[in-house]
Amino acid sequence: MEIICLQENLKKGINIISNIIGKNLTLPILNNILLTVEKKRLRLISTDLEIAITHWTSGKVKKEGEITIPAKLLSEFINNLPNKKIEIKTKDNSLQIKCENFKSIIKGIDSKEFPIIPEIKGESIIKIKAPELRQAFSQVVNFTSLSDIRPEISGVLINFNSKEIKFVATDSFRLGEKILFLKGNRSRVKKSVIIPLRTVQELIRILGEQDKEEVVEILIEQNQILFKTLDSRLISRLIEGTYPNYEQLISKQFETNLILDKNEFLNTVKISSLFSSKINDLRLKVVPKKSLVEVFAQDAEIGENISELKGEIKGKEIEIIFNHKYLLDGLNNISSNKVILGLNGEASPGILKPVGDLSFIYVIMPIKL
Amino acid sequence: MEIICLQENLKKGINIISNIIGKNLTLPILNNILLTVEKKRLRLISTDLEIAITHWTSGKVKKEGEITIPAKLLSEFINNLPNKKIEIKTKDNSLQIKCENFKSIIKGIDSKEFPIIPEIKGESIIKIKAPELRQAFSQVVNFTSLSDIRPEISGVLINFNSKEIKFVATDSFRLGEKILFLKGNRSRVKKSVIIPLRTVQELIRILGEQDKEEVVEILIEQNQILFKTLDSRLISRLIEGTYPNYEQLISKQFETNLILDKNEFLNTVKISSLFSSKINDLRLKVVPKKSLVEVFAQDAEIGENISELKGEIKGKEIEIIFNHKYLLDGLNNISSNKVILGLNGEASPGILKPVGDLSFIYVIMPIKL
Repeated sequence: MEIICLQENLKKGINIISNIIGKNLTLPILNNILLTVEKKRLRLISTDLEIAITHWTSGKVKKEGEITIPAKLLSEFINNLPNKKIEIKTKDNSLQIKCENFKSIIKGIDSKEFPIIPEIKGESIIKIKAPELRQAFSQVVNFTSLSDIRPEISGVLINFNSKEIKFVATDSFRLGEKILFLKGNRSRVKKSVIIPLRTVQELIRILGEQDKEEVVEILIEQNQILFKTLDSRLISRLIEGTYPNYEQLISKQFETNLILDKNEFLNTVKISSLFSSKINDLRLKVVPKKSLVEVFAQDAEIGENISELKGEIKGKEIEIIFNHKYLLDGLNNISSNKVILGLNGEASPGILKPVGDLSFIYVIMPIKL
Repeated sequence: MEIICLQENLKKGINIISNIIGKNLTLPILNNILLTVEKKRLRLISTDLEIAITHWTSGKVKKEGEITIPAKLLSEFINNLPNKKIEIKTKDNSLQIKCENFKSIIKGIDSKEFPIIPEIKGESIIKIKAPELRQAFSQVVNFTSLSDIRPEISGVLINFNSKEIKFVATDSFRLGEKILFLKGNRSRVKKSVIIPLRTVQELIRILGEQDKEEVVEILIEQNQILFKTLDSRLISRLIEGTYPNYEQLISKQFETNLILDKNEFLNTVKISSLFSSKINDLRLKVVPKKSLVEVFAQDAEIGENISELKGEIKGKEIEIIFNHKYLLDGLNNISSNKVILGLNGEASPGILKPVGDLSFIYVIMPIKL
């Protein structure tokens, strides 16, 4: 193979695909990028056998062909080169690279050893703008279970129907649901899939590097999903299993209903959490007739803190205990100034949601004493 | 004790002193800050028994007294409070803190258990502007030996004389010397001291938080040194021992003299170093008649790179091998556009210095094959 490309194009492509490549000692070929010169473009592929990422970049093709090259070295080398023309050429199992006053030879591995990347010809589910998809994933990804004990919650659920797409993640202690309401481009199919956490993290990263106007097409085939933009593709396996029937947790009616200033609430939780013990964590005492929440934290060894929060509070008086970290995670994913906290007694899940935005709901289980 | 201070003042003070406090399991009192209300101010002290830092902050004193409080908790708590008045009051061995809608009690340890901080009444050596002192330390601190095998080079040498102050650090593979030329405020004494690496790192951090116009007074007494600003003091032990007689390494005459573009040189070393093997590292072939340096790196497993650097080169042709990391460290501490590299054969130390700036010299030992 032989091609001339611009450093910035090659750099962008390598950065998009190479993050999933780690240090694989048992299968060294997975540490490499597959470079293929075909027709008028250079194709770059990486895979960890669960996810495969492909990116095409333009260049002046002199000769078709392919080779695999260690990703880490190639990426550091190309990133540091000046933004000029780069001449790339294979010789035996090496890649010769010339750029301005630099001449390098990098040893590679024959492309025949590279795993076969599946083709997805499955049904096209929907097209979404890249920033919207990225934001939806970002808002729930951190609630995913990090353990593999229950594989079905170790990923993000995507539920497509004709009016909306729901993104859901939970670790069984708290749950986040983000809804993308569809206007023009309705989804063609009803479908639910569970996407592995790493795939979601990778998508968030890659979509952040795309143009604002970039559109992502999603295709599904059996146990695989494909995210497709103009120049890039990400294929991932799906998680098999049945996602928990979470909708019953999301009450619409509350015995106690609070509207609080988001930043005040966030700051109070932060400060109180410094004093929280593992057993007792944060105790919220809600007093509707005083329009007041007392947040109380105490640890026998370090001390205690009481903070008062004013708000618009209706319904029953209640004392309830929450884990401070889960409260913080929920509040940090809400961008409105005011937040609604809905409670139904000390043993039922609390609901946290932004005021004036129906697209996000956060469910948090209380700690029962 | 009882005092009212502003959150931002208290926050600043705690941040200045608390960085040296780690997690000391054998002597828990060292995890605490000593707070003393005296006359019209609040004094904060931290120590790790090698370094002690004191900072004074103003406030409305209601009652004198003192207590020690865990630094980590106090620091996180105060940092997160709103920038309002904070009421601080001891009760038994606890500290009561009130700020807006927050009320806390933090458990402390009796101040009698806190180590005694030495007073230095030694001779005042000099007064220097804080940014100048900080920059001088910063430019050499990274060359200090991290090992304790030769304690005398595990710190930064400061050599005071009537015309200048020299700051020197080495790990025996390379050495940096920074000179502060004195104008008005000449040093009163000739003196050399070796300051422990951690003290220097702490000073760089603290001086970065001072006003630009802040002046630092340096006092020395036997084996201790004091750095004094308007509101803060840092006392440290000095390292005993004789600093190596390094001046013989700094040649003034060179067999080969190169003037190179600093950024080009830096970038070439970065790129070449990707291909450098541990044995061979970077080989520089200097060809004066072509005004050219060829930088060559090769590793049998990964490949090779040749880069060409143009420059103004005089004297003998030479091939010399350098460690790429040491070259990078030197170049990264030079801010001029052009850099001088002086060589005296393949076995003698190379000298790197900025063009048009006599205040910095970097010595780098070649690798002998």
